[in-house]
Amino acid sequence: MEILKKRILEDGTCYEGGILKVDSFINHQMDPMLMKLIAEEFARRFANDRINKILTIEASGIAPAIMTGYTMQLPVVFAKKKEPKTMRHALSTIVHSFTKDREYPVSISAEYLKPGDRILCIDDFLAYGNAAFGLIDLIRQSGATLAGMGFIIEKTFQHGGDQLREMGIHVESLARIKSLENCQIIIE
Amino acid sequence: MEILKKRILEDGTCYEGGILKVDSFINHQMDPMLMKLIAEEFARRFANDRINKILTIEASGIAPAIMTGYTMQLPVVFAKKKEPKTMRHALSTIVHSFTKDREYPVSISAEYLKPGDRILCIDDFLAYGNAAFGLIDLIRQSGATLAGMGFIIEKTFQHGGDQLREMGIHVESLARIKSLENCQIIIE
Repeated sequence: MEILKKRILEDGTCYEGGILKVDSFINHQMDPMLMKLIAEEFARRFANDRINKILTIEASGIAPAIMTGYTMQLPVVFAKKKEPKTMRHALSTIVHSFTKDREYPVSISAEYLKPGDRILCIDDFLAYGNAAFGLIDLIRQSGATLAGMGFIIEKTFQHGGDQLREMGIHVESLARIKSLENCQIIIE
Repeated sequence: MEILKKRILEDGTCYEGGILKVDSFINHQMDPMLMKLIAEEFARRFANDRINKILTIEASGIAPAIMTGYTMQLPVVFAKKKEPKTMRHALSTIVHSFTKDREYPVSISAEYLKPGDRILCIDDFLAYGNAAFGLIDLIRQSGATLAGMGFIIEKTFQHGGDQLREMGIHVESLARIKSLENCQIIIE
């Protein structure tokens, strides 16, 4: 997706330790017009996967997910970063964050993920894949089917995407970052 | 907004202690088509307020805010529920949650709220107004101007809206809940 790659090179900033900040247009300040183009690209790439629901995780997955839901005319659910005890009929899992070096619980009400659902997961970043594996676990617990996973940005050098693709999952990422070495953004 | 009121009466559920759950279409599972209609209504009501940026707070404010930003063709920023030390150039405040009976820090990068900005705050609920007062404090610290506040649902019996309107703020809420007594939803 050329317009996205161009924007990352122009407005993204790179820090030591493989960190890419896209705070000014994706996950703190957000550009809704770019987000709509991102949603249209996801809709195109997953058009044949018979998706009936979109799943994401708070907070920065919500904007691309709701736009994709609007574009595909499908409901969207977001998993919450909280203890299952505060939610009715909760399915729950633990996600390990490499960036923050901590574990946190992620929960979703079983009312909104059902056997028979074909789920498209949407998130802003795919790095080591930890949030993605959390969503996969929630889908597994619910009995729904994972039909695809779409990410705005994939850091291919952190290999979460390799693992997901080896599991046979239809994974799409709209910008693939090959390297952030020496604080230089190299996109495939 | 009749379609929203109808949906709240049909799909909302009411619990002891003035709690209204709209989990199935607004803040856990979300209906993006309804969210777009909500955004169009906000755009209409704030059309004359010379807004140039939208501000919300994670997580359930993000969906209506990004849709409103898309409809009004404006950038959207969401304040994060985290300590300012993890953010560059952070402005920070403390919000007291009545629902959860705890205080939490809310931060935003000063890069994205500037003097000269005219801000529309968007959130899902207005109850006692605590999250709203947090956003007002962040705007005040930044030197930007608060131009309006839009809420999907206002619980008028919890009076946050009265306080905001007494401060002279242009407040719009799309469904005004007058009472949840005896677990019955009464909309104005």
